[in-house]
Formats: sequence, structure tokens, C-alpha cells
Amino acid sequence: MDHYDTIIVGGASAGLSAAIYTARQGMKTLVITKDIGGQALLTTDIQNYPGFDMIGGFELTNKFKEQASYYGAEFVYDEVIKISNNKESFTVETGNNKYSSLSLILAFGKTPRDLNVAGEKELKGHGISYCAICDGPLFKGRDVAVAGNGSHALEAMIYLSSVARKVYYITNAKKLLGEDDLLETVNSLKNKEMFFDSTLDSINGTKSVESVTFQNKTTGEKTILPVSAVFAEMGYIAKSDFVKGIVSLNENNEVTVDKFCKTSTEGIFACGDVTDTPYKQAIISAGQGATAALSAYNYVQKKKGKVVAKSDWKLIKH
Amino acid sequence: MDHYDTIIVGGASAGLSAAIYTARQGMKTLVITKDIGGQALLTTDIQNYPGFDMIGGFELTNKFKEQASYYGAEFVYDEVIKISNNKESFTVETGNNKYSSLSLILAFGKTPRDLNVAGEKELKGHGISYCAICDGPLFKGRDVAVAGNGSHALEAMIYLSSVARKVYYITNAKKLLGEDDLLETVNSLKNKEMFFDSTLDSINGTKSVESVTFQNKTTGEKTILPVSAVFAEMGYIAKSDFVKGIVSLNENNEVTVDKFCKTSTEGIFACGDVTDTPYKQAIISAGQGATAALSAYNYVQKKKGKVVAKSDWKLIKH
Repeated sequence: MDHYDTIIVGGASAGLSAAIYTARQGMKTLVITKDIGGQALLTTDIQNYPGFDMIGGFELTNKFKEQASYYGAEFVYDEVIKISNNKESFTVETGNNKYSSLSLILAFGKTPRDLNVAGEKELKGHGISYCAICDGPLFKGRDVAVAGNGSHALEAMIYLSSVARKVYYITNAKKLLGEDDLLETVNSLKNKEMFFDSTLDSINGTKSVESVTFQNKTTGEKTILPVSAVFAEMGYIAKSDFVKGIVSLNENNEVTVDKFCKTSTEGIFACGDVTDTPYKQAIISAGQGATAALSAYNYVQKKKGKVVAKSDWKLIKH
Repeated sequence: MDHYDTIIVGGASAGLSAAIYTARQGMKTLVITKDIGGQALLTTDIQNYPGFDMIGGFELTNKFKEQASYYGAEFVYDEVIKISNNKESFTVETGNNKYSSLSLILAFGKTPRDLNVAGEKELKGHGISYCAICDGPLFKGRDVAVAGNGSHALEAMIYLSSVARKVYYITNAKKLLGEDDLLETVNSLKNKEMFFDSTLDSINGTKSVESVTFQNKTTGEKTILPVSAVFAEMGYIAKSDFVKGIVSLNENNEVTVDKFCKTSTEGIFACGDVTDTPYKQAIISAGQGATAALSAYNYVQKKKGKVVAKSDWKLIKH
């Protein structure tokens, strides 16, 4: 079993920023992740990461990855299925291997939430998508529906309106909600039709999506819309079941952290979207990654009996 | 008096990142700052801002500034001397003007701490410096001292050793403390001499620094070293006196914030080094800037009677 100073679970903004910091501090660092970029891969362009006017999510997180690799971080592309706390160290298990580490940094982010509606399981990947930007082009010139709410849903509509013939929006909200500039853009779309105050009943089709059924919450009126695809935009969920009992989670299954990015368990730190931080943004995740990394570094140094600087970590050579 | 949705006090990583976010959200934004970059200007190269292998502090924060300007943020180069809370709005006074705003974002960072030693006042700017990288070149081929502790001090020594003939280090620490890679580099310097467990007595000279007197804390032995310059590296202090009574400060004069970057006063937010966040890093400040900005946006939207999205602010178009 390979031993590390820290194992980082997750390879998006938070985990990669943490890896830059731990590796640069000379910690033997392993990043275990399914992919590089996480949700950043689901975006077109990131316009609000300070330092870049506009950059692709893949391009930005790949820069992070290269920086971390340069300082010596190792990468394994796998899924963590179990974490054990052996008091003096932690064991991290994937389907293929086991790794041991003095500290852990949880940075596995969030994944899109299911619609929880009849037909979803059967038609997933056959016209039901959780990533408008990834799958939108498959439905060029067709009619599609966006089901969900908030800025995610607006973004999906805006993008899909440029690809699909018609975009329907089915939302339980009573009015259009989301970022101001998105609201304006959505309102200006010509090929949209919106259904508010509505809940999905079912997604219908034999081999692939053929229609969607929804109901008005106030009148009870049911509508069946013929569509070729339904894009789920219900927000994101923390798939943190494998750390239940290891660290404290809040009611949203998010890992609770303090301002040091410490979890409830000594030696385990967390950062990014998987934590109970209120806003989910690439720059916020990257900042938290640095915080978690410096906390993990201090923890491991103490564990090794080394003196930890009491200064406020204002590293001149940032 | 000009009215704004938000006034940001400070124009370094935290304040500029906040300005990108507030301006991009369509808030009428004013940044009041003495300069662009703050402490980033005191560094040579930043190597750990995720996204850039290496970038000058001036270059990075200037990118931030351009992004904020692009989205419409306004800039005034001045020093804030007073803030008043009028319940429904805030008034911000500089020496030259008054501005009014619905919300405030405090991001004025920290400034280098004085040595508090005899001769400091008289010889400040005449051989006593608080920025090795700024003033080091003035003492090429001369003997200089670094007084202080921690990574700042090590960075100063490393830089100065390439410029000065000899670099003395006077520190109250009993051993060399700081980042691992810095310790290694400092230990390898040929033209250094280090005095541990020591306190400064005085900095001496008529028109400019001629020598420095210090005392061993254990033996009481006094030493006078002839030097042409003393570089103060005592860390940084939050000059937050002008917000005393307006927001709660901790024992270090840092503005206390919660995870939304809210201060103790409704409508006032804070981010970056001036807050009680444990680690002071450009990426952490930038992340906090985004958090403070989104909180200020939600606050102002509510104040204007607008609906605020309940989503978790995962903006697909980041």
C-alpha cells in the first residue's frame, strides 16, 4: 500500500488548488479523481475567474493540474468507494487499489440532481440529459425541454435556444428566477415557451424520449408536450454517502467545515462545492483548496513533530 | 454625493475580485483604493495562484482590475478616512470627497507592522524599509539586516542575499521558522549571518542607518552591527481603526466575518487579509472577494424588493 502525506479526493478547482499548495509545500500528495475539471467541464466559458477574461473550464482546470504536477502531485484516475480512519492514518479504497495517508482533503464536489420522475431511469442517456452543453448538439433543430429552476436552468435554455428549434421551460417556480443578466437574455429568446408553477409527471417514450407530461400545481391541469429531449437542471447534490460516519454532514449532505476548512474529524479537511460553503464558484473553490491544503500541511507537520510557523502564512513568494 | 449599490474599500486581490463579481451582477460599483495591487506589489513573482505558473503581482492584480473595469466598476484613487452608517445607506468619506452606498465591502488588507524600536521613526525611509523587494536594490554591495520572523523574513533574506554584500538576520525565534522550501534556500545562502533569540534595542544613525543594536534574550549580551539598512519583516497589521465601532474586530484588529463574508453589521461585508481568515494568500482573498460580492448582491437585491434566487449560486456561466 502506497503511503502519502495527503490524499485529495477530487480533481476539480478545489482539489487541484489544494494539490498545488500541498505539493509545493513538499507534501507527498496523491489526487484520486474520476476526471480533471469536474463541473467546470460542464460549462462553456468561465468569465469570472479573476485573472482570465474568459477561459474554457477544461483549459482552466488543466492549468491547475499542470501546476500541481509540476510540484510533484501524483494522480490516479479512479473512484473512491471507502475511507477508513485508523486514528494514526487513513486508508482510501478505490475499486482497484488501497492507499494510506496521514491526512485527507475531501474535494469531490457535487453531481447533478436527478429529476425523480417516472421514466427517468429508463430514458437516462436516451434523451434525458444532465448537461445541456455536453448533449445539446445531439438535438439540433428538434424541440427540447428544460426541467428545473434557477440560473443553471436559464443557462441551459439560453444555450439550447441556439441549437434546438424550440425550447420549453418547465419549472415549479411562479416566476423566472436567476441572475439578472440571464433573466434579460432568457426574456429576449424568441424560440422559447415557459410553463411556471408546474411539476413533472413523467417522461415518456419507448426507445428514447418522445414527450414529457407535467401538471400545473394550482389548476391541476395536465399537459403533454412532444419533445426529443429533457434537460434536467435541478441543481447539484453532494454524493457524500461514502464519508457518512467519517465526517459530519449537514442536511444537504454537504461536509461541514470551519474557516480552516477542518471537518469534524482531525486530519480530514474539505473544500469546494462538497462543503457547506454558501456559494459555489470556481474561484471560491480554489481559495478554499488553498486553505484546506495549508491546514493539512500544518496538521501533518505537527504529526511529524516539526515546528509549525505561527505566522499568518502571508507567503511573500505566494 | 454619488450613490452606489456597493462601495469596495481596497483594490488588491480581494477587493478587485469582489468588484468583478458585483459589477458583473449589474451593481453600480465603486472601488476606492490607494493603489491597485496592495501587498501583491511587494512581491516578485506569484507562483501559487492557480491558473498561472508564475506571474508578477502587479500583472495579476492589473488583470483583475481590467476585468472589473470591463464590467463597469468605477475606480477612485484615494484613502477612506471615515465610514458612517445611516441605517438605510452608508457614507464613505475620503479626504477629497463623500460617496453614498447601499452596501459596503471592506477589503483594505494589511500593512507592514512597525518594529517599535528606538530610531525607527527618525530613520524610516533613510535605511529602514518595509519592503525588501522595493528598496533592496538601493543597498547593492552593502551590508544589511533583516529584523523579524517567519516566511516573510526568509523571503526578504533570500532576495537581499542576491543584492547585498552580507545579510544579517535578527529574530526573536530560537530557530529558523518558515516554509520548508524557504528554510532550505536560506540555509544554503553563503553571505548570511543569523542571530536567534534576540530583540532589537535600537537602530542607529544620524542622517541614515549606520548600525543596529540588539540583545540576546537569554544571555543579555548586546551586539552592535554596522549596517546600511534594516528591513522590517514583522508581519502585517490591519489598519482598521477607521471602522472601529462600525463593525466588530478581533484581538488582531481584523474584521470578523462569517462564511458569507458578512460582518457584524448588516450591509457591510469584508474579504481578504483584513478579515480574521486564518491564511493570507492571493487565491484565498480572491475567493473571499467573490463570496462577499455575492452576499452584497443578495443584500442589495432584497433591499430593492427584488426576488433573490434560492439556488446555490452555481452559475454555469461562472
